[in-house]
Amino acid sequence: MDSTNFTQDELDGSLQSGENQAIKKNDQEELFHIFTYSENQYREIKIKEADEIDDLRDSQSITWINVDGICQENILTKIGSKFGIHHLVLEDILDTTQRPKVEDYENYLYIVVKMIYSQNQSDEIISEQVSLILGDKFVISFQEEKKGDVFEEIRNRIRLGRGRLRKAGADYLVYALLDAIVDNYFLMVEQIGDQLEELEDELVDHPSSKILPRIHFLKRNMIFFRTSIWPMREVIGSLERREFPFIEKSTVVYLRDIYDHITQLIDTIETDRELISSMIDIYLSSINNRLNEVMKVLTMIATIFMPLSFIAGIYGMNFRFMPELYWKWGYAITLFTMGGIALIMLFFFKKKKWL
Amino acid sequence: MDSTNFTQDELDGSLQSGENQAIKKNDQEELFHIFTYSENQYREIKIKEADEIDDLRDSQSITWINVDGICQENILTKIGSKFGIHHLVLEDILDTTQRPKVEDYENYLYIVVKMIYSQNQSDEIISEQVSLILGDKFVISFQEEKKGDVFEEIRNRIRLGRGRLRKAGADYLVYALLDAIVDNYFLMVEQIGDQLEELEDELVDHPSSKILPRIHFLKRNMIFFRTSIWPMREVIGSLERREFPFIEKSTVVYLRDIYDHITQLIDTIETDRELISSMIDIYLSSINNRLNEVMKVLTMIATIFMPLSFIAGIYGMNFRFMPELYWKWGYAITLFTMGGIALIMLFFFKKKKWL
Amino acid sequence: MDSTNFTQDELDGSLQSGENQAIKKNDQEELFHIFTYSENQYREIKIKEADEIDDLRDSQSITWINVDGICQENILTKIGSKFGIHHLVLEDILDTTQRPKVEDYENYLYIVVKMIYSQNQSDEIISEQVSLILGDKFVISFQEEKKGDVFEEIRNRIRLGRGRLRKAGADYLVYALLDAIVDNYFLMVEQIGDQLEELEDELVDHPSSKILPRIHFLKRNMIFFRTSIWPMREVIGSLERREFPFIEKSTVVYLRDIYDHITQLIDTIETDRELISSMIDIYLSSINNRLNEVMKVLTMIATIFMPLSFIAGIYGMNFRFMPELYWKWGYAITLFTMGGIALIMLFFFKKKKWL
Amino acid sequence: MDSTNFTQDELDGSLQSGENQAIKKNDQEELFHIFTYSENQYREIKIKEADEIDDLRDSQSITWINVDGICQENILTKIGSKFGIHHLVLEDILDTTQRPKVEDYENYLYIVVKMIYSQNQSDEIISEQVSLILGDKFVISFQEEKKGDVFEEIRNRIRLGRGRLRKAGADYLVYALLDAIVDNYFLMVEQIGDQLEELEDELVDHPSSKILPRIHFLKRNMIFFRTSIWPMREVIGSLERREFPFIEKSTVVYLRDIYDHITQLIDTIETDRELISSMIDIYLSSINNRLNEVMKVLTMIATIFMPLSFIAGIYGMNFRFMPELYWKWGYAITLFTMGGIALIMLFFFKKKKWL
Amino acid sequence: MDSTNFTQDELDGSLQSGENQAIKKNDQEELFHIFTYSENQYREIKIKEADEIDDLRDSQSITWINVDGICQENILTKIGSKFGIHHLVLEDILDTTQRPKVEDYENYLYIVVKMIYSQNQSDEIISEQVSLILGDKFVISFQEEKKGDVFEEIRNRIRLGRGRLRKAGADYLVYALLDAIVDNYFLMVEQIGDQLEELEDELVDHPSSKILPRIHFLKRNMIFFRTSIWPMREVIGSLERREFPFIEKSTVVYLRDIYDHITQLIDTIETDRELISSMIDIYLSSINNRLNEVMKVLTMIATIFMPLSFIAGIYGMNFRFMPELYWKWGYAITLFTMGGIALIMLFFFKKKKWL
Repeated sequence: MDSTNFTQDELDGSLQSGENQAIKKNDQEELFHIFTYSENQYREIKIKEADEIDDLRDSQSITWINVDGICQENILTKIGSKFGIHHLVLEDILDTTQRPKVEDYENYLYIVVKMIYSQNQSDEIISEQVSLILGDKFVISFQEEKKGDVFEEIRNRIRLGRGRLRKAGADYLVYALLDAIVDNYFLMVEQIGDQLEELEDELVDHPSSKILPRIHFLKRNMIFFRTSIWPMREVIGSLERREFPFIEKSTVVYLRDIYDHITQLIDTIETDRELISSMIDIYLSSINNRLNEVMKVLTMIATIFMPLSFIAGIYGMNFRFMPELYWKWGYAITLFTMGGIALIMLFFFKKKKWL
Repeated sequence: MDSTNFTQDELDGSLQSGENQAIKKNDQEELFHIFTYSENQYREIKIKEADEIDDLRDSQSITWINVDGICQENILTKIGSKFGIHHLVLEDILDTTQRPKVEDYENYLYIVVKMIYSQNQSDEIISEQVSLILGDKFVISFQEEKKGDVFEEIRNRIRLGRGRLRKAGADYLVYALLDAIVDNYFLMVEQIGDQLEELEDELVDHPSSKILPRIHFLKRNMIFFRTSIWPMREVIGSLERREFPFIEKSTVVYLRDIYDHITQLIDTIETDRELISSMIDIYLSSINNRLNEVMKVLTMIATIFMPLSFIAGIYGMNFRFMPELYWKWGYAITLFTMGGIALIMLFFFKKKKWL
Repeated sequence: MDSTNFTQDELDGSLQSGENQAIKKNDQEELFHIFTYSENQYREIKIKEADEIDDLRDSQSITWINVDGICQENILTKIGSKFGIHHLVLEDILDTTQRPKVEDYENYLYIVVKMIYSQNQSDEIISEQVSLILGDKFVISFQEEKKGDVFEEIRNRIRLGRGRLRKAGADYLVYALLDAIVDNYFLMVEQIGDQLEELEDELVDHPSSKILPRIHFLKRNMIFFRTSIWPMREVIGSLERREFPFIEKSTVVYLRDIYDHITQLIDTIETDRELISSMIDIYLSSINNRLNEVMKVLTMIATIFMPLSFIAGIYGMNFRFMPELYWKWGYAITLFTMGGIALIMLFFFKKKKWL
Repeated sequence: MDSTNFTQDELDGSLQSGENQAIKKNDQEELFHIFTYSENQYREIKIKEADEIDDLRDSQSITWINVDGICQENILTKIGSKFGIHHLVLEDILDTTQRPKVEDYENYLYIVVKMIYSQNQSDEIISEQVSLILGDKFVISFQEEKKGDVFEEIRNRIRLGRGRLRKAGADYLVYALLDAIVDNYFLMVEQIGDQLEELEDELVDHPSSKILPRIHFLKRNMIFFRTSIWPMREVIGSLERREFPFIEKSTVVYLRDIYDHITQLIDTIETDRELISSMIDIYLSSINNRLNEVMKVLTMIATIFMPLSFIAGIYGMNFRFMPELYWKWGYAITLFTMGGIALIMLFFFKKKKWL
Repeated sequence: MDSTNFTQDELDGSLQSGENQAIKKNDQEELFHIFTYSENQYREIKIKEADEIDDLRDSQSITWINVDGICQENILTKIGSKFGIHHLVLEDILDTTQRPKVEDYENYLYIVVKMIYSQNQSDEIISEQVSLILGDKFVISFQEEKKGDVFEEIRNRIRLGRGRLRKAGADYLVYALLDAIVDNYFLMVEQIGDQLEELEDELVDHPSSKILPRIHFLKRNMIFFRTSIWPMREVIGSLERREFPFIEKSTVVYLRDIYDHITQLIDTIETDRELISSMIDIYLSSINNRLNEVMKVLTMIATIFMPLSFIAGIYGMNFRFMPELYWKWGYAITLFTMGGIALIMLFFFKKKKWL
């Protein structure tokens, strides 16, 4: 067990080094990342065994336990019994296909949400289930995978004592975690919006058959986001209405802020969906228009050359008695007639606006 | 009547043999499969006649009567009068086209749900109506057919005394039965999801006219599932809200769990439906694209060869006075001209991006 | 006025004859078919004049007056004043385009529903408006036409004293009438479902342009049914919630049964509607597929024969100096070349999966 | 100022003349058409100046002031101050793009609805905004234009003392006016329904490209009607629920009647809308079918004549050594071969059901 | 700091000059435009620094501070601390992607809406976020950009003392600002309606492929408007229901008026959306119709000339023994036959209504 324990005064100047220190000492297998903090001090520890947690809590501070990679059932069971968590909740934490929801138990509040982010500026979108247990002066967050998260900024706020976070209660920490998650949704949804706009321009300028699968792909992503975001609205809504005892009154205004953000996200997604359905209309009509154009070319060619070939065919017949064949200007007249027919056809197409 | 009666102590080591014993002794016509259990012991009997049931109940244990193949009206009437079941309920049990619902009667709760499962890993999906009567310390489950069910795991839990089941009341047994049914829905819906994904890949890679009927088939199944699942949400919802006296408070948290599962199922189905409608768009546009391509080939061929044939036609005319025919290089020049026209046409198609 | 008046004892053995007697004596113009019944006896009368009704009622029995063919306003007015019915209700009874509804007046309950049935196994669907007045110990039912109805089974239940009907109150009679009507909806909706399935098979096997009008026809019928059934749900729902004093508590469980039936009907109709919209998709895509196939044939023919004809055209030219024409194997080489081109084309089509 | 003042006794026999008298004496500019009536008498006056209104009211009678052509703001202001009408209401009366609504002010109720009618059996549909002010013993109705209205029958009922109108209060007059307006909606909606049916027949029998714009026109009208009718339901609904003090209890049953009518109208419109969308499907598929047929003709012609022409082309070649050309039956054999190919093609088309 | 301070008496005659004076003296950087007014007097000042605001307020007057271009965070922070505004509100004011909403804080009400207008009759639509703070006797309005606004008329009403504005409270000022914003929505939506009608006419008269992108553009704008207007309805609705203490009862009737306007706007937008979807149907069918026509031309040409060319081809064959070639009238008969075939074809097309 390695711990970093500072008072606020020591810390202010030396965050960077302190953080490095913490990271260097810890190895891969440290699944528990624990913060205990109060207004004036904080402690940051990474440990391997759930048993060590007990020593860290005290009645003054707020404890935030972040558990990465919730694959090991026995670890979960240990924590569960330590904090008195219902076995159904533990099952839900393990089952990473949960729908976002909030559930009230006697001693704690259980919240499941989806964290969506892309790491290292790559295109790959990672969706992780995050389960939060909000109890009396503690928060436990369970992450599906060890890859990373969107909470680094919150950790820094605890370390630096920036903002309200160190002064406020555990419910404010839950707010901060949820806010970080929702803010990342915005990034994702904006990314989709940008891609949509790009596709829209391309659709008007040079529509190709490759656009539809891309539209479909965006639609897919959007349906997927919506599935995560819609139930989050209910979650935040019921938190904001303070249906649960663990939410303090002063936090409500912050939760209302998240609620507004989610409503806005939903608006954006619905708008995007309408745009997509309108784009599909345009795409389909552009295909039809292209077909129309191809057919016009074919029809023009056929309409001009079929009569001409027919005339040539007539004078290619081998009848003995075809007086025109013996006229001196027969050939020339025929050629002129053909040219005339071609011109008439072109004029007809012009009038029909095919050209 | 053959019975297996053990105390928990005797049982723990010998389940396997006890079970075999029970199965061996019973013949086909034993429609009633009865469990009576309390925390410390259980009894498992299969009987042929409803009359024998009375002897089996005692005020300490919980009795679960499973009735297979509810075709015989007289049997139903007997049970009905024995347990004081309203004749409308009996009619509903017999009518296997019921919509999932829950109804409160004075002495019991009546629940109808649909059990969907596929047997022996086969593709065939079996949908059976299951009616549950939850009374004071007894549960009666009526199955539409004798084929099989999804309750085997619950029977084992009773036999082995695993989990909460033996310790909890009759309402917990109802929860366990409903949970087993809902868990099987997941399997079914996931199967559809997999098939959808497969179709989606096929649609992008080599769309054929055989895909649409298959999409239609999946849509059909999904509509069918939804018809079963939507009303189940209401059923579980009203159970969870404890609108009925037979549900104990400790069971509510478990029912809430089923409720969440059903909500998730509905989400998945709605998402799948949207994907399907998007896939149909892609399919239709792929047909149109194919038509476009066919027409392009036709138009190119016609546009190249019609003018060429026309030229050949001209020099096939039999006019006496056609000076070109007598030129030495007439033939060669004509061939070169034709080649030139073909090249110009190809260049034109290149520019139009038809090639 | 002719009456059949039996005590239950006399009746049990002689229903058939009693019924015949009643029918024989009555002529066409007897618009009023009146039953008065109590647990032990019943009387069945058909009369021509509304005035005769008074003599028939007594405070012990329940009176059911069925009025056929509500075209004559003066008859209606007479009954109206006899039973104290509001003139707006009388107007509604006459206006056969009413939407199903229930209205509460001080002395009676007014219910309008649509009765849909097909007579004599014929295909023609008859839709009749039925107005029910439920008062203190009497029910008046007004039918739009004299053709027939779906109530014969209820009449027999009164005559034979079968079931609860004779023992229960007037509200149970209303339930029985509504139940008979709703049961006939099932027949109609199932008929549509069968036709849909038939069309679906035909659609997959050999789609033709005659299918769409038939689908449209079914859709039309379904929209029409829905218009009748949706508001009936509200009607039964408000009856079941006992918003009206004339419904006794013991009848509620029966009304809930009808309510479930209607919900199921609506489910079926909605499912059918979705199937129809999916079928239209399949139909449209099958048209497009057919067009595709026709175009492929055209394109293949054109792509094979146009180049060949062009070659033939070249050697049909009359140039003096065409060395090939004088080669010994010129003709044979040309024919072989043509065959080669045709084979290459066929290979190309094979590769494009057009063949 | 000219007035017609009768007691009921004088009137009964002489309505026709009295009415004529009234009409003859009045000139164009008489914007105010005033009725004051009680159970036993009525007075009908048309005046030019708002100032004259005061003399006409008395505490016994009910006064109905109908104002035609509400273009002149100063007239409105005068009435407004006379009856204490809020300036926002006056603005709303002048703004003829109001949405139907009802507003409760201390001394009066303000109702806006749309009156839709067609005059003189012409096809032109006139939509006029009608504002109603219901106060204590008075009703003011403001019509948008002077053209005419649907209230003539109500005027006759006042003149003749027919029905409840003269006996009831001012709220009943408002009911009567609203009822007359809603009844005219029925005419309009039925007209659309008839046209739809006509179009449907035409669509099945000989669909042409002129049908779609007509369908679109009907849809347009229907959207327009719906915009007027939907909010009217809310208006009548809140009147019926007696949220406003000016509605007496005895009028509620009548308002419920209008409410039912409007619900029925909305049902009809929704049904029509579904039919329209189904008709558009049929129309689009009929276009596609026609295209299919055109393409079949083209393909058949090409498939038959291209091979034949190719054969003719072969024997039109000028090769020296073409043995067939010198056979005696060469020509005949070629012709037979051609006929054979044509027959095979026709057989092929027959099999493909193109013929 | 330059101020214009008049009593009402001085002002009435000299507004024009006073206004000019104010504008002339102020330079670009004056972000604060402050009005303080009471019934009898008003003062209008433009200042650069937030610090100067304090001197301007007095307990009698109502103060309206309009802040243009809210980009500078430090200015906002100053105002925030001066008026005790929550930091979350300040963040929301800075974030110009807010969804319209209203939030109640202890000392003030915070309203966000979108102001949509086009400046100088240009086509460009400007959308600006406007945040309103309504406190005790003051209103602060924050505009996103300095470009301009729709409030000039309100300023004139304050200057001239026209209407209720100077007499009423700060909540009435908020009403006036919201009303001005909603009135501008009408202009925008009507503009779209006009363009739609134009497109509709064009669609029927000469549909071209350029129409769909324009329809899409209008749809886009409409979706965008709706996103702004829908949540405004909620905002105004909750203001009107007086859920907030800062709204006086006398203002409710005005807010109800805005509410009606917004409902009407939403109606119009929904109607427009339906029209658009109907127009897209027409457009798509017009493309298909055009394709049909093109194909008819092609088919007619091919059907006429292919048989004729075939006949010509036959008599172009070089068989030795072709008796027709040596007939005297062979050529003439062939030409007549060809003419006959052409006529038969044309007759056939006539019958099929292709001509």
